[in-house]
Amino acid sequence: MDRKPRDKDMNEIVSLCKRRGFIFASSDIYGGLQGVYDYGPLGVELKRNLMASWWRAMVYERDDVEGLDGAILTHRLVLRHSGHEATFADPMVDCRSCKSRWRADHLVKGKCEKCGSSDLTEPRPFNMMFKTTVGPIVDDESYAYLRPETAQAIFTNFKNVIDSTSRRLPFGIAQIGKAFRNEITPRNFIFRVREFEQMELEFFVMPGTDDEWHEKWVAARQNWWMEQGLAKENLKLYRQTKEELSHYSKATVDILYKFPHGFEELEGIANRTDYDLGSHTKEQGQFKLMARVEPNHDSVEKLAVRDAESEQFIVPFVIEPSAGVDRGVLALLTEGYTVEDLENGSQRVVLKLRRHLAPIKVAVMPLARNNEAIVDMAKQIKAKLQSLGIGRILLENTGNIGKGYRRHDEVGTPICVTVDFETIEKTPAKVTIRDRDTMKQERVAVSELPQFVREYFRPSDSQ
Amino acid sequence: MDRKPRDKDMNEIVSLCKRRGFIFASSDIYGGLQGVYDYGPLGVELKRNLMASWWRAMVYERDDVEGLDGAILTHRLVLRHSGHEATFADPMVDCRSCKSRWRADHLVKGKCEKCGSSDLTEPRPFNMMFKTTVGPIVDDESYAYLRPETAQAIFTNFKNVIDSTSRRLPFGIAQIGKAFRNEITPRNFIFRVREFEQMELEFFVMPGTDDEWHEKWVAARQNWWMEQGLAKENLKLYRQTKEELSHYSKATVDILYKFPHGFEELEGIANRTDYDLGSHTKEQGQFKLMARVEPNHDSVEKLAVRDAESEQFIVPFVIEPSAGVDRGVLALLTEGYTVEDLENGSQRVVLKLRRHLAPIKVAVMPLARNNEAIVDMAKQIKAKLQSLGIGRILLENTGNIGKGYRRHDEVGTPICVTVDFETIEKTPAKVTIRDRDTMKQERVAVSELPQFVREYFRPSDSQ
Repeated sequence: MDRKPRDKDMNEIVSLCKRRGFIFASSDIYGGLQGVYDYGPLGVELKRNLMASWWRAMVYERDDVEGLDGAILTHRLVLRHSGHEATFADPMVDCRSCKSRWRADHLVKGKCEKCGSSDLTEPRPFNMMFKTTVGPIVDDESYAYLRPETAQAIFTNFKNVIDSTSRRLPFGIAQIGKAFRNEITPRNFIFRVREFEQMELEFFVMPGTDDEWHEKWVAARQNWWMEQGLAKENLKLYRQTKEELSHYSKATVDILYKFPHGFEELEGIANRTDYDLGSHTKEQGQFKLMARVEPNHDSVEKLAVRDAESEQFIVPFVIEPSAGVDRGVLALLTEGYTVEDLENGSQRVVLKLRRHLAPIKVAVMPLARNNEAIVDMAKQIKAKLQSLGIGRILLENTGNIGKGYRRHDEVGTPICVTVDFETIEKTPAKVTIRDRDTMKQERVAVSELPQFVREYFRPSDSQ
Repeated sequence: MDRKPRDKDMNEIVSLCKRRGFIFASSDIYGGLQGVYDYGPLGVELKRNLMASWWRAMVYERDDVEGLDGAILTHRLVLRHSGHEATFADPMVDCRSCKSRWRADHLVKGKCEKCGSSDLTEPRPFNMMFKTTVGPIVDDESYAYLRPETAQAIFTNFKNVIDSTSRRLPFGIAQIGKAFRNEITPRNFIFRVREFEQMELEFFVMPGTDDEWHEKWVAARQNWWMEQGLAKENLKLYRQTKEELSHYSKATVDILYKFPHGFEELEGIANRTDYDLGSHTKEQGQFKLMARVEPNHDSVEKLAVRDAESEQFIVPFVIEPSAGVDRGVLALLTEGYTVEDLENGSQRVVLKLRRHLAPIKVAVMPLARNNEAIVDMAKQIKAKLQSLGIGRILLENTGNIGKGYRRHDEVGTPICVTVDFETIEKTPAKVTIRDRDTMKQERVAVSELPQFVREYFRPSDSQ
């Protein structure tokens, strides 16, 4: 079989996503909402599988991480003391002529892209947080923000988690959830959007051990992405220069992936020092903070731990591996999308997702859609395989097996099971199993099918 | 053993939730944000388990339902044509004297509850949707809403789902996700909140079959809640009277649960007729709609299906079982919270959650926290059990077994496994398994432990 590797095309991926139900433009019957997407029947499974894989690796398989699920609506004081109110902004210019507004760094010609005028204002910071009024009265204090990152709920709950779990350093708190940024120019499909999902870990360590933990997490996160199927040659580490670092960061390493539009950030692993807990703690003066923090007279909790040796209270350093779920999904789709030339001269599209990530694990297909005995047998097999708890099993009752195989290649279903006339007529009952990648078919006894499928999807054999 | 059933107390549940890390008031180091909560390390697992159980029952185990995960930010036209802009409001009155604002039906004495004045305005509708500005410019059109329910994304994606899956009636689209309502008076812990999670199914049927499907879904959803462990006597069906029905509803049955503050709605199952698709479709005049809908000149899609018999395009009716995740969590906590009198005269608190819902499935406890061989063996056992994929296994290395049992009773961990000196010294190696409900202990060989645990958590044996 002849396989031609080639550059992945964003348009083909976007088209597959819409056509097969991975991702739709949100509110599209009303013209859409720029930078906002909905996940369809297959997209929701792919996204859930990716998030479950992260949660398994970060919370379940470790002995030093707790989970959290914080709210999206966030108190204005949280985002004031986190620094977001002051610094989470892009520079914008207004066109005095047509009143349109632009990101300063996007107007490369120095002229308004709408009307061509060069009568532009000086750049002004535009805060990217979404704001909303909470409660019945509109006044200066009754607003909240949609969180621009999940991290802050981890910091504000630091003491709650310590108190309820008796954790000691080093330990982490993991969270998956939605975050919102009022991007001026959302672009590249689900890469830069206004509503997105993050997978963030805040790992708290003793000052002095932070550099070592930072390196450990960079390695762990790179490995994890490779275990999700991203090829090593499509991943790159980028160490931010001193000029590029955020004000709170001692060191940040970005994991870049080769998206259709080029190598771009998939995950960032930052050493945030004691900036976050130091910013949110009360009695800041008690601690020797390394980070420069703004005064905080609002917080009512001390966000510090007692060091057993020195008996001093210490504000931990934090290492933050922060990954985008939507960017992860786009990376998986990009990596998996493959066009193969077949022996008979035709082509097929295959989405080569790892087994644990595939939206549909097994498609069970009756050969004749109106034959009651065949359809009943297929339903029974589907129910049996579903009870294994490995993910979604689909009963695909279209009656066209060849088309069914192609459809399932395109969405990454690892195996198809066909129930035919022999299945119901012969003893022992056998079905045809067809493999997505090799396209090989084999007959397996129905009685042995659950064991076959369970083995096929064993985590350790995932490929 | 003497068990005294008694009424559940909300304060005890709230206290357990904070103390053991189920649920925290959000942003509480800054005084909290009213009606907004964060889920802690145990709460996130309980909530995830409940949502997974719903997804399994609604999407995986059926052959007629697809999943979806729509965005929270929603186009204003979606919520105009859904009817929310006009009707999703509570009547409010303002106090002319002190300028405070109240829900009209809460001021039972007709006087301001803050200053006592009776100089109040007439009731005015107050829309409960949260609004935010999207994009760089603030004008009359550049706002969106935080969705007040997940349902609308299902209706607006109706054609996308049909086109990508080739579904025919009857079929459903299921979704779990956050929704937001600017409640004037959030109350009763996580029962009435401003940010909450919904589990909604929109099940599309041929007109004429809707009454039958409505009844089927009421029965199915009641059964499902009982399978989650809610006792039959704590559940009640309430059929809304004609006066109580929403304007779009032909019939609505509420499933009420006996919360600490009384019987209140846990889930509603509504027959919404053709109101939703009829409101969002273009060319409304082509269809004989049963529902009275407002004219729609904005939609660009026909939300209808072709009836094979009559060859006419028909707008399906929809049955909507809509459940609150947070209310579900509160119901499970209420149902499970049990105080037992023990033989020795002391009491214990046990959280009697069904096995599939328990936040921690197994706690593995080394008898001596500083004995390397014992701790290593415990870690190995934890890793082995974790790989079974049944949920979170916890390594609990506090060294105090008795306290460990009590702690895990209180958070509903079904079994504790203790590794002691005999485990590492004798052959074959055995551990002590202790059951949450019976408190019975038995010795099991380490080699047989995975099989024991797998059997214990088999879905069909869930109890």
